Amino acid sequence: MSVRDEILFANEAFYRAFQGRSFPSMDKAWATKLPLLCIHPGAPPLSERSHVMASWREVLGHEGCPDLDYQLDRVIQHGELYLVTCYEWDRRRTDAAMVAANGYAREDGMYRMVIHHAGPVPRTAIPQASPSPMNVH
Amino acid sequence: MSVRDEILFANEAFYRAFQGRSFPSMDKAWATKLPLLCIHPGAPPLSERSHVMASWREVLGHEGCPDLDYQLDRVIQHGELYLVTCYEWDRRRTDAAMVAANGYAREDGMYRMVIHHAGPVPRTAIPQASPSPMNVH
Repeated sequence: MSVRDEILFANEAFYRAFQGRSFPSMDKAWATKLPLLCIHPGAPPLSERSHVMASWREVLGHEGCPDLDYQLDRVIQHGELYLVTCYEWDRRRTDAAMVAANGYAREDGMYRMVIHHAGPVPRTAIPQASPSPMNVH
Repeated sequence: MSVRDEILFANEAFYRAFQGRSFPSMDKAWATKLPLLCIHPGAPPLSERSHVMASWREVLGHEGCPDLDYQLDRVIQHGELYLVTCYEWDRRRTDAAMVAANGYAREDGMYRMVIHHAGPVPRTAIPQASPSPMNVH
């Protein structure tokens, strides 16, 4: 598996955990030893792993948890860190969307999430065409 | 100068360019060769340097450009990349604020901006106490 495939696999695992509202899968998606940064839409930054996971427990358990779909935007590499940007939207809503930057780094032989930073964008900001080719620098 | 001081110096240079609405200073703040990622509030990701700088030319030249102030939140390190999170607000408004993740990496011997990702937070999300001690991992 190429590094690019490994990164996309980790990113897909994150979104499957989100879509399936699975806290154990979300817990597994995040690194356990590396520095973390999680910024949910409208919320302050979190770094302590216990705070990050508590926030996901709340998001996934909330009745307003989106029925999420996503579209890959691009991948940016800085050394050991890969940032994957994605558009996200709730299948039940047509008026709103999010743009997220998801960071992955290698821990114990596999890529795990170390950054999630999401904020609102108009649904019209999402490119209608098929996702542009990824730029893995 | 310690690495921590160099990072904070680069971050301060970014905010001074923003506060002074100086396009040349903003242009100088950003790396010229490294991969970039710029996500303005409510806008799609930008990576091409010409697009990133065009967006800043628009922001800085816009009559609605905020009279910006900021408060440092934390610093997270991943290899060569340092992410500095900050709260930002417009001195003319009391109802809104932003949280930003600013990424810096070394290029030609100095740290330059490679990531800026900002989104809205309620003004009440900003800690009232003095900034918490930075966690440079």
